Amino acid sequence: MTISQQHVDAALDAACRVARQIGVPMNVAVLDNAAHLKAFVRMDGSLLGSIDIALGKARTAALFGMATEAVGEFCKPGGTSPGLDQTNGGLVVFAGGIPFHAPDGTFLGAVGVSGGAVSQDLQVAQAAAAAASSI
Amino acid sequence: MTISQQHVDAALDAACRVARQIGVPMNVAVLDNAAHLKAFVRMDGSLLGSIDIALGKARTAALFGMATEAVGEFCKPGGTSPGLDQTNGGLVVFAGGIPFHAPDGTFLGAVGVSGGAVSQDLQVAQAAAAAASSI
Amino acid sequence: MTISQQHVDAALDAACRVARQIGVPMNVAVLDNAAHLKAFVRMDGSLLGSIDIALGKARTAALFGMATEAVGEFCKPGGTSPGLDQTNGGLVVFAGGIPFHAPDGTFLGAVGVSGGAVSQDLQVAQAAAAAASSI
Amino acid sequence: MTISQQHVDAALDAACRVARQIGVPMNVAVLDNAAHLKAFVRMDGSLLGSIDIALGKARTAALFGMATEAVGEFCKPGGTSPGLDQTNGGLVVFAGGIPFHAPDGTFLGAVGVSGGAVSQDLQVAQAAAAAASSI
Repeated sequence: MTISQQHVDAALDAACRVARQIGVPMNVAVLDNAAHLKAFVRMDGSLLGSIDIALGKARTAALFGMATEAVGEFCKPGGTSPGLDQTNGGLVVFAGGIPFHAPDGTFLGAVGVSGGAVSQDLQVAQAAAAAASSI
Repeated sequence: MTISQQHVDAALDAACRVARQIGVPMNVAVLDNAAHLKAFVRMDGSLLGSIDIALGKARTAALFGMATEAVGEFCKPGGTSPGLDQTNGGLVVFAGGIPFHAPDGTFLGAVGVSGGAVSQDLQVAQAAAAAASSI
Repeated sequence: MTISQQHVDAALDAACRVARQIGVPMNVAVLDNAAHLKAFVRMDGSLLGSIDIALGKARTAALFGMATEAVGEFCKPGGTSPGLDQTNGGLVVFAGGIPFHAPDGTFLGAVGVSGGAVSQDLQVAQAAAAAASSI
Repeated sequence: MTISQQHVDAALDAACRVARQIGVPMNVAVLDNAAHLKAFVRMDGSLLGSIDIALGKARTAALFGMATEAVGEFCKPGGTSPGLDQTNGGLVVFAGGIPFHAPDGTFLGAVGVSGGAVSQDLQVAQAAAAAASSI
């Protein structure tokens, strides 16, 4: 099983629905499991500076197959891998990037969300990843 | 008037409808009039190498306010501006990137399409730009 | 309303006047609200290394619609977004970049100032942003 | 003698005056003789894609101490230095970048102009360089 438009639709619909519920326009990126761009939406009124962050979160989550903040654990002060965030052309290592999988566990891709407070980005990304994983 | 989700929806719907009609999965990028990414979709089965081309076509059309092949006229052999395509971090100067405007003439943004033959890319981009311009 | 030469003239005049008052030659960048360069001046005798900093401060303030040091709050030690300053090709997150708005609240652009102590940069940037906002 | 605000004022005033006479809003960059940015103006209504071109023309003229189209002679088909335009991070080798000198022949800097047809860019750049050279 590979990522398809169905996963994209589910992820973007869920992300935009939650973003509207909390009243924060978001940038949402969906990448495949090889970290190539599959879909992107910048909701009306969201920050320009968050475009690159949403893309970077999704790329980080796709490249490492884990949530962005989990990647951040390795490179935080005292972590095992200082400067890890400087590899791969620059990673984004705070919350808002999440990989998603098929029901059989196949790694399909990752979402990245940016536009609000980090906790809001995470909330939207979790909704998007859960929706994409349910297909 | 500025670009909104309505323009994006119209452009992507039209692009994907024509792409399905001609049986060629496409990459479609929509940028605002300052060349910032607004939306992107890679249809299932389309080429990975076309992601960057679609983005580049849209960026070129947005930066110069004209179709990509019109920009290409300036830098073709014998043109007035050799190497123009190497500016702005690299332009894409063959057909498939088209600016779109509001009914009152306001420049709103640009679409970029890549995935098939250039004539197919152009056909899909024209449909997308026309749909976005009709709102 | 969009940025115009009037805003640029007001910003640069105010910036250079204050810079001369405090006796510190400055680099001053003015960007539009999509972070594209609108105007720049390097006053005689100012530091070469400050050119890029002034541009970066203005770009940071334009991309996030807030003062550079406010962006810095997110990525300082213990902040919510470690490494935010590494996104968007590199941000500048100390004081001296300030967005400015029209009297009706429309976001018009941002100024970035560098050349002196950070407190001096901030003083000059505040004068520039206030002048541009008064038009 | 080194470049000063007087040269910048003379160059920008002349450039903008001619640009208005021919009715084409221009981007005008002024660099010092070490190719560092000294001043820049994007006239209201000029193309976003021309920002980078104006900067690139001025940089090319400053780095080689000759007009951009003269640099282009070396790398045109049949020229002695194919690919020269790919060096230095990318040069711009069509007309519109011109070095300027003090009356005693000292090399002071270069102007770069972009926004219209190449012949118009050249006309504006010549006016700017002449004005800066007359001080």
